[in-house]
Amino acid sequence: MPGILRNNILVIGGGSVGAIAAVNIELGGVSDVTLVLRSNYDVVNEKGYDIESCDHGNLKGWRPSKVRNTVPNVSEEGLPYYNYIVVATKNIPDISPTVIDLVSPALRIGNRTETTIVLLQNGLNIEKPFLTSFPDTIILSGVSLIGSAEPSPGHIVQDEPDRLLIGAFPHPSANVLIAEALAKSFVVMYSSGRKTDCTYSPNVLHDRWRKLVYNACLNPICTITGLDSGRIRLADGALNGLVRPAMREIVRAARAAAGVDLAGDVIETMINVDPLESYLKPSMQQDVEKGNYIEFENLLGEPLREGRRAGVEMPTLEVLYQLAKAVQWRIKERRGLVDIPT
Amino acid sequence: MPGILRNNILVIGGGSVGAIAAVNIELGGVSDVTLVLRSNYDVVNEKGYDIESCDHGNLKGWRPSKVRNTVPNVSEEGLPYYNYIVVATKNIPDISPTVIDLVSPALRIGNRTETTIVLLQNGLNIEKPFLTSFPDTIILSGVSLIGSAEPSPGHIVQDEPDRLLIGAFPHPSANVLIAEALAKSFVVMYSSGRKTDCTYSPNVLHDRWRKLVYNACLNPICTITGLDSGRIRLADGALNGLVRPAMREIVRAARAAAGVDLAGDVIETMINVDPLESYLKPSMQQDVEKGNYIEFENLLGEPLREGRRAGVEMPTLEVLYQLAKAVQWRIKERRGLVDIPT
Repeated sequence: MPGILRNNILVIGGGSVGAIAAVNIELGGVSDVTLVLRSNYDVVNEKGYDIESCDHGNLKGWRPSKVRNTVPNVSEEGLPYYNYIVVATKNIPDISPTVIDLVSPALRIGNRTETTIVLLQNGLNIEKPFLTSFPDTIILSGVSLIGSAEPSPGHIVQDEPDRLLIGAFPHPSANVLIAEALAKSFVVMYSSGRKTDCTYSPNVLHDRWRKLVYNACLNPICTITGLDSGRIRLADGALNGLVRPAMREIVRAARAAAGVDLAGDVIETMINVDPLESYLKPSMQQDVEKGNYIEFENLLGEPLREGRRAGVEMPTLEVLYQLAKAVQWRIKERRGLVDIPT
Repeated sequence: MPGILRNNILVIGGGSVGAIAAVNIELGGVSDVTLVLRSNYDVVNEKGYDIESCDHGNLKGWRPSKVRNTVPNVSEEGLPYYNYIVVATKNIPDISPTVIDLVSPALRIGNRTETTIVLLQNGLNIEKPFLTSFPDTIILSGVSLIGSAEPSPGHIVQDEPDRLLIGAFPHPSANVLIAEALAKSFVVMYSSGRKTDCTYSPNVLHDRWRKLVYNACLNPICTITGLDSGRIRLADGALNGLVRPAMREIVRAARAAAGVDLAGDVIETMINVDPLESYLKPSMQQDVEKGNYIEFENLLGEPLREGRRAGVEMPTLEVLYQLAKAVQWRIKERRGLVDIPT
């Protein structure tokens, strides 16, 4: 039932995070979602999603309003503009196409204030390339604490509730009140299905650094050791030898680089955030096992660089970063992006 | 042709290093080798080794004088004593049985000066448990710079010459001249087939620390990143970000902890010791890929502890050590040595 009061929403990326976002936005009943898929397009286009969700129950054959396998070029295709573009892909700035390349055609040339971009992605400084490329567009931060995975294309298993923190990234020129209003409006739209915990959270830097205590540390450590977040807690000395030292470096960097004081129990909270018995693999570990590129630059490289610039010693994260970079190179080679002499 | 002037030699471990050692010792023509095998016993006992060697050519169906699948218990079996026991197994002190457990039955009780033990193994402080358990026995150091592998049981491919440095480990009570003489006598026996480069080298600590520049660094880095020693040289920034910092820590530790001054070009020499185009996997990487335990304590843990005791900062090796320890735990779990809550 399209109408002038309905929101026109583009969700780019329909993996385990994007699919649940699309469900929440459609469930609100006031928005039409166009969902852009890549690797799972054929399956979802043909049969819809098979979703097992702790928030939504079982949704067999679920589809948003529209499904596409390319990002719409709104100018060329003469499409109406999107109120929000939700980016739920991986963010891998060291591999082309970048997120900027991906989003660009969905913004109307010359009218880049009419659309708000929501980055439902992890890591630090991910808004920076957007502020450079689209200086008039407001960029929202979405920090998702969802536990979900896509064990096979189109099959989404969400076993932990979708808790989403939305706020506006600091913007060099946009009106703060407008940015706040757009963030709050997104929260209302996302939450109106009443199945999810989506909250307006103005302190974006705090939310992002807090999640990095997990993401900059457990993601690479689990990826590199091949131990999931349950097993890393059981392995001889891994918590005291690796995880806690790395997390302490992030806590110190957050304070020195961003003035973010994380709660005193953040390290133990993040260590125990995944239930022990479920033996969950952090997203980066899942990516490596699938042969996908890893998000190590925004999760690990940026906080490391920020911390070092602020004078924090980060010996553990430095080595983890260098190792992750070598792992990324290995994936590049396997995917034919680098040639080696024979 | 047994005779009283012949040496009675026990070689424990018939993988890629032990098999070539057995060949060299038998080729000398003055020794009888009893070779103790484990995983490849059935194949070698039935069909002999299939050896492709740059030193020895192709040896199809090669066998030493005797092949066994257990370490002989010389006292119980009433066997003559061994002149030398060459230990060519992996040395993994954190997993039972240890090398001490393994060697023990091959020494006659109460007569532990008649046999000399040759540790053809890598890493630091490997003689210490022997000096404690068998305080009267002389222990020789064998630092092998061989390039060989066992791609399938009993099939040995040696593509780089066997260069072996033999010297006596410092001994708290034994006569230095006797220890030297026993080392030199081993060199003569090993070299008399004239196919190999086995040298007496009195500066055991120098030889061991020098090899650690490779083994403590490239072994874990290649293991953890999944990149072989050729690829790690090609991967973005891995040499400057990981390999050289780790190697510099070893060079500093060698000087501070052992007074060993390694040659100024040792780092570049070790980086380039494997031919680039051959993309060789260091032994630890091969072990992980085969699901075998890794020798991280003697290769990485001991130099790290020695360096730290001497006041050297070793941030790179510290993280690599902790990661290697977690990898070892993963292998233990896969092999059923640890139980995890379900």
